[in-house]
Amino acid sequence: MTKLEDVAEEAGVSASTVSRALSRPDMVSEATRTRVLDAAERLGYRHNQAARALVTGRTGLLAFSVPSLANPYYAPVIAGAQAAAEEAGCELIVVVTDGSAEREQALYARLSERVDGFAAAAPVSAGTQLSQVARKRPLVTLNRRVRGVSSVVVDTPAGMGALGGHLAGLGHRRIAYLGGPDGSWLDPRRLSALREAVPDCEVAALGPYPPEFEAGVRAADAVLDTGCTAVIAYSSTLLIGLLHRLTLLGKSAPHDLSLACADDLSASGLAMPEVTALHVPAAEAGRRAVQRLLETVTSGPTAATHQLLPVELLTRASTGRPAA
Amino acid sequence: MTKLEDVAEEAGVSASTVSRALSRPDMVSEATRTRVLDAAERLGYRHNQAARALVTGRTGLLAFSVPSLANPYYAPVIAGAQAAAEEAGCELIVVVTDGSAEREQALYARLSERVDGFAAAAPVSAGTQLSQVARKRPLVTLNRRVRGVSSVVVDTPAGMGALGGHLAGLGHRRIAYLGGPDGSWLDPRRLSALREAVPDCEVAALGPYPPEFEAGVRAADAVLDTGCTAVIAYSSTLLIGLLHRLTLLGKSAPHDLSLACADDLSASGLAMPEVTALHVPAAEAGRRAVQRLLETVTSGPTAATHQLLPVELLTRASTGRPAA
Repeated sequence: MTKLEDVAEEAGVSASTVSRALSRPDMVSEATRTRVLDAAERLGYRHNQAARALVTGRTGLLAFSVPSLANPYYAPVIAGAQAAAEEAGCELIVVVTDGSAEREQALYARLSERVDGFAAAAPVSAGTQLSQVARKRPLVTLNRRVRGVSSVVVDTPAGMGALGGHLAGLGHRRIAYLGGPDGSWLDPRRLSALREAVPDCEVAALGPYPPEFEAGVRAADAVLDTGCTAVIAYSSTLLIGLLHRLTLLGKSAPHDLSLACADDLSASGLAMPEVTALHVPAAEAGRRAVQRLLETVTSGPTAATHQLLPVELLTRASTGRPAA
Repeated sequence: MTKLEDVAEEAGVSASTVSRALSRPDMVSEATRTRVLDAAERLGYRHNQAARALVTGRTGLLAFSVPSLANPYYAPVIAGAQAAAEEAGCELIVVVTDGSAEREQALYARLSERVDGFAAAAPVSAGTQLSQVARKRPLVTLNRRVRGVSSVVVDTPAGMGALGGHLAGLGHRRIAYLGGPDGSWLDPRRLSALREAVPDCEVAALGPYPPEFEAGVRAADAVLDTGCTAVIAYSSTLLIGLLHRLTLLGKSAPHDLSLACADDLSASGLAMPEVTALHVPAAEAGRRAVQRLLETVTSGPTAATHQLLPVELLTRASTGRPAA
């Protein structure tokens, strides 16, 4: 493997100059920096990250925590987060918390010295615990808002209001909401926004359900028991399970029941019928969280910012007027 | 923040002794080590990982690459891998390659200095490229076998043989196989094993399909066109999409068509009907890959090992005798 000394010889400078040119380029002249970088590239030299970390105090690693990789919501979120990290020359460590506050705190403590900061998707720790983490290391929360901690929140509550308005406008007066996942900070806000948007409707809140096909299948009886004419599921995967079970029971949408969901991530655009859904900017949310984190890492503590990403209501064939 | 010097003072030893006790505990006496660790714990000192990396040459980080986080196969695999890494006091970096050889190579090159080794799930790079990576850094492949590189492979080909035997034994003579994903090393081996197990059957190979519900829905017409009496999908998510579409078309399993899939990860145990499937030890595969990687990291280069994990055939209500 090429050593620092080889690069020094090739560039005709001392080893310490090479080290400075790579770690603290502002401390050497433009000409020297160019000479060193060219020599390093010719020899295929890879600057030792551990050495760099000691000099700059940064590791170039960012941790991104998610409650679960089984939830299809997080694949595009992580893709966006990873793209933003790579653009900045950093690597993203994805860690899974299983939606447990204890596990979150253990992960933050264990990784604290290893990463430059944390992006935490839907963390369930107490607000005071997250504030404490943020005092030690840059932290950005996704789909969770804590005072004093920068956040990116996908505004599904506003989308739920639009969805409720759409259903009420079609004449529905009894709407079932399949909520979840358990412990979600955002979920009660979705439900409240729905209730506020349809003051003349009865909203039956069911759940919490995990974001899974099976859970949707198993929810079908409870949904039918409510006597509702319309259903909103917080997760498209959950809704597809419900749709499948309803089809087996001989029910069709929107004739027997209008169906909608609060994300468009899992097959909800299929023609069977196409499902009314909220378009969520999942990749953009991951990207924004990491970009904000990088700002905090680079510039040090600043006032917390709170970004709210709008969602879009896509009305499709699965919602219609209730049967008379 | 507590400094090394504070620990030294608390323990009544020199700073260099503290450093040695934490980085190379074998170089200090048991009594000194205990004194230093106790002092470090009392003061809440967290040993600087970057400093440790410089001393030991290890980072405590392992990279785990997967083609996609949208494939439900990888959630339990990563859970198992992460558990094994944590038990060893290491952290797992999950990186997504999008099933592109170019991206795999770029990731390996970029991370090479940052991690102690790689576990690569279903990599699509050429065997020679993977051998080259393995010469520079410890590498274990999952569901891919390359000469000279340690591997863990879930033996779905053997399972496909058992599944074929089950269907042939029920009297099926035309079987459709929905294969994928694109570029998979394992997939042609699944198909070959199926064909070898049922020499008297015609096997119609369709695909490659992505492991998605939508893809299953869209495959339904092609499946019916084959005139087969039984279908095996390589992915349970794909099969559920197919099952849903067939239900909408008024077809039921096993009456009109026997249905089975080569994993049991996505709702295949549901009573609608319950689906015949292969039980795959996904978490165990992730765990084994990381355990083998840690052995290589710790002991240095040794002869490559190849682990084959058996799968189990679960026969359920979705397969039966073909209609006369």
